Amino acid sequence: MWCHSCKEGYDEEDAGTCKECYDEASETEEELKREIEELRSRLHFLRLPSPTLDAASAPNCDLLLHAIPSCPSSSGAGGDGDAARTPDTPAVPAHRVILASRSPVFRAMLENEMEESRSGVIKIYDVSYDVLRAFVNYMYTAEALLDEQMASDLLVLAEKYEVKHLKAYCERFIISKVNNENAITHYAFAHRHSAKQLLEASLSVLMGSMSTLADREEYKELVEKDPRLVVEIYEAYLNRQVNTAAGKDTDCSSRK
Amino acid sequence: MWCHSCKEGYDEEDAGTCKECYDEASETEEELKREIEELRSRLHFLRLPSPTLDAASAPNCDLLLHAIPSCPSSSGAGGDGDAARTPDTPAVPAHRVILASRSPVFRAMLENEMEESRSGVIKIYDVSYDVLRAFVNYMYTAEALLDEQMASDLLVLAEKYEVKHLKAYCERFIISKVNNENAITHYAFAHRHSAKQLLEASLSVLMGSMSTLADREEYKELVEKDPRLVVEIYEAYLNRQVNTAAGKDTDCSSRK
Repeated sequence: MWCHSCKEGYDEEDAGTCKECYDEASETEEELKREIEELRSRLHFLRLPSPTLDAASAPNCDLLLHAIPSCPSSSGAGGDGDAARTPDTPAVPAHRVILASRSPVFRAMLENEMEESRSGVIKIYDVSYDVLRAFVNYMYTAEALLDEQMASDLLVLAEKYEVKHLKAYCERFIISKVNNENAITHYAFAHRHSAKQLLEASLSVLMGSMSTLADREEYKELVEKDPRLVVEIYEAYLNRQVNTAAGKDTDCSSRK
Repeated sequence: MWCHSCKEGYDEEDAGTCKECYDEASETEEELKREIEELRSRLHFLRLPSPTLDAASAPNCDLLLHAIPSCPSSSGAGGDGDAARTPDTPAVPAHRVILASRSPVFRAMLENEMEESRSGVIKIYDVSYDVLRAFVNYMYTAEALLDEQMASDLLVLAEKYEVKHLKAYCERFIISKVNNENAITHYAFAHRHSAKQLLEASLSVLMGSMSTLADREEYKELVEKDPRLVVEIYEAYLNRQVNTAAGKDTDCSSRK
């Protein structure tokens, strides 16, 4: 027989579909491609020029965001440390309507009579200027140039300001980078920031190398710092073993 | 043989594809669907709450748009007629950043020292309140509920303010509604508003009913109002006849 797709001959045992299904599938593929085209064009329309990239849209900005990097010597609870943490980088301009529509936290801040709403100035703590720029840029474009560090920093910010879409975007990126070397670090990070899918992905990698787990430096650090998380790794491991054993039992009894 | 897609048997003459191509096509379909999912999620993120629908986002608006419906008794050239055309409908609130990013005409108006930029009030002439609301809503959501009249009115506005995406959206909708009854009207409309694809679509429908063209009321009106457009219909018709004849000649000579 002759394949309508690759235009080559094939034998009966290599047969795939009948002609009708092939035609239908081709039509479906065309339809899906048209839909993608249409969605891309709508995306292009809805995407806004970010004032972090396009200075021309900055004049109409009604907000200024200041990045206040974390200060290791500060207690982290405001007070004296806070006063000392003045920004030495330029402010990042933005529009209230954009930030309020992307983040319920900004919305509450800007639509109520809070200091930030009156002054039009928002301080974003524990973040570098570059991360803040990337964060604001994402609010306008739904795009970000990520590496592992940037994805982690943006995920933290996205969680804080409840920008779910950005959090999921960063989480997917980090998941694609999880390996034996960094699984413990990502596991602890995912725990801290309620990133469920990253937690599962890193746990799954950890399960594959349990025999060497306790030798790792990051493991020892985690035992020191947050032993409950280590307990959860062992619980998950045990759980999996029990389930696997139960599965085998069922297999055996069904065979009997 | 057995079709992997519809799970039914088929004969050799109904064969579609080999197994390898079928697997590949299924994978492609899955990938396309994932891409659509991803694009939809980004669209959902970028879509903004329109102040025409969501009063909560109106407080931060920095623009008011007034619909000034067309006045049949006015000369249409401003002056006395213009003064009489005061709006009796509420203003439509909007944000400078959104309008400026969607329309180069609004951008020029708002970023230069024009009266509209200073006052924050823009009069939109020859448009009803409902059309203006739909227009502003589209700027935020890339969505509009269309019927033929709304699509035509929005197309006119989209052309005036150079909102290409909306113009194409309306044009596609109108094209889907072109038939023998309305082809002349849509042809003249497409001409007036440089809607190329609609022009071609309506011309194509007209070509199919040339024998009854001259009997139509809209035809007679068009001859009165804009005879050059009628000439263009005949030119297109003649052109097509010549091309068809040339095609036949080529067919005949190649057969000889």
